[in-house]
Formats: sequence, C-alpha cells, structure tokens
Amino acid sequence: MQDDVRNLHRALDSFGEHWSPRRLATMNDVDVKVFKALGEFTWHSHPDTDELFLVLSGRLVIQLREGDVELGPGDVYVVPRGVEHCPRADDEVQALLIEPVGTVNTGDAPSARTAAVRELD
Amino acid sequence: MQDDVRNLHRALDSFGEHWSPRRLATMNDVDVKVFKALGEFTWHSHPDTDELFLVLSGRLVIQLREGDVELGPGDVYVVPRGVEHCPRADDEVQALLIEPVGTVNTGDAPSARTAAVRELD
Repeated sequence: MQDDVRNLHRALDSFGEHWSPRRLATMNDVDVKVFKALGEFTWHSHPDTDELFLVLSGRLVIQLREGDVELGPGDVYVVPRGVEHCPRADDEVQALLIEPVGTVNTGDAPSARTAAVRELD
Repeated sequence: MQDDVRNLHRALDSFGEHWSPRRLATMNDVDVKVFKALGEFTWHSHPDTDELFLVLSGRLVIQLREGDVELGPGDVYVVPRGVEHCPRADDEVQALLIEPVGTVNTGDAPSARTAAVRELD
C-alpha cells in the first residue's frame, strides 16, 4: 500500500509545463490534480461542475466577469458550475485542482490550451 | 467573491481539538475538510466511499489490516471504500480530508469518537 502514496511536492518537481495538470490521486469519481500556472489562461466555464483551486505557492488571480478573486498560499476557492472564469498568474503558481474525473481544463471553450490530464511519471 | 476564499492555515489555527474535522470547502457533493490528529483513532471502514488523506504537517500512520501506510508532509493516500483502517498520530498531525458530504468520521463503527463535521468559526 505504501507504493500507492503520492507526494505533491515531488509531483510538482517532476514537470515544468504550465496549465498542464497531472493527476495526483482519485477519490471515487473525483480527481485531485497538481498544476503549474504562468500567464493568462483562457475564459471558459464548466457547465456541469464546480472546480476547486487550492494554491500552494505564488499568487493566482481567478478573473470572473464580476471581478477578480486573488488567492495566495493556502487559499481555497470554488468556482461554481457555469461561472465564466479565467485564471492568471503574473509569477509562477503551484496549485491543486479538485474536480470530477473527465473535466477538461478549457471547459466549454476548447482551444490550443486544451490539455487532457496527464499521469505522473 | 473574495469573501468566499478560505485559507487552510488560518482554518487550522482556529481550533485545537483532535479528530474533529472542519469543513473548508465543498465542490459539488465532496467536502474538503481540515483536521488535527494526535493519538490513535478507531478502526472503521466507509463501505460506500473512498477517503483521501493529504498530510500538511507531522507524520500520520494509516493502520490497515495488511500493514501500515506512513504519510509525511505533502503525502496523499486514498483509503479505498470498504477497507478497514485506523489512523494514528504519535505527534500532532495537520491534514486535509477529501470525501463526500455526509461521510461520518467513524464510518461503520460509531463510538464516542463520532463527530459531525463542524463549520469554521
């Protein structure tokens, strides 16, 4: 069973790409993923699911049509289903993402930034 | 929206009780809770759900009938549904717990340790 333990810091050290989540673990039908962010992502929403962000390092701005939500280390924020948002990181951010298995990063706005979740090496 | 941000470190600073989870956020029907642990909990299982532990500080031992799983800072482990387990912390541990809304801490083994999730002050 010890082999099934994953470490989120080692996971984050194992890749460099931004906006390309890696699956850390799955609880029932929910994925816990790690990702790195730098720059602005794309405006999108997830019509069928909430999306939870937990920032580990850096400052992540979740731009919403109504205004910005700023997240620092240890901050948790849930983007409700259907709410348009566009994450932005002016400096590199490391964060956790919690959402159902199969959730696509660009939601209802597929683009060149669309990336399937990847497994850890 | 900024008022909906929760900080997990401030959440952990806001209470002292062991084995008494506080709800940090809810994503769809899944709770993300924080808890503190010290000593041994009780043997139990959750017949209908997996349970995800993410250790923030200290060392948490998840005792299983097949052997122990040891978790340090940043370690993530999912106890599969139906698997008997008994967490133990020889020194104080701070951790996240991710499981469906309504999951009872003592699972199928109610006791004096049974505690409903509490809201943060």
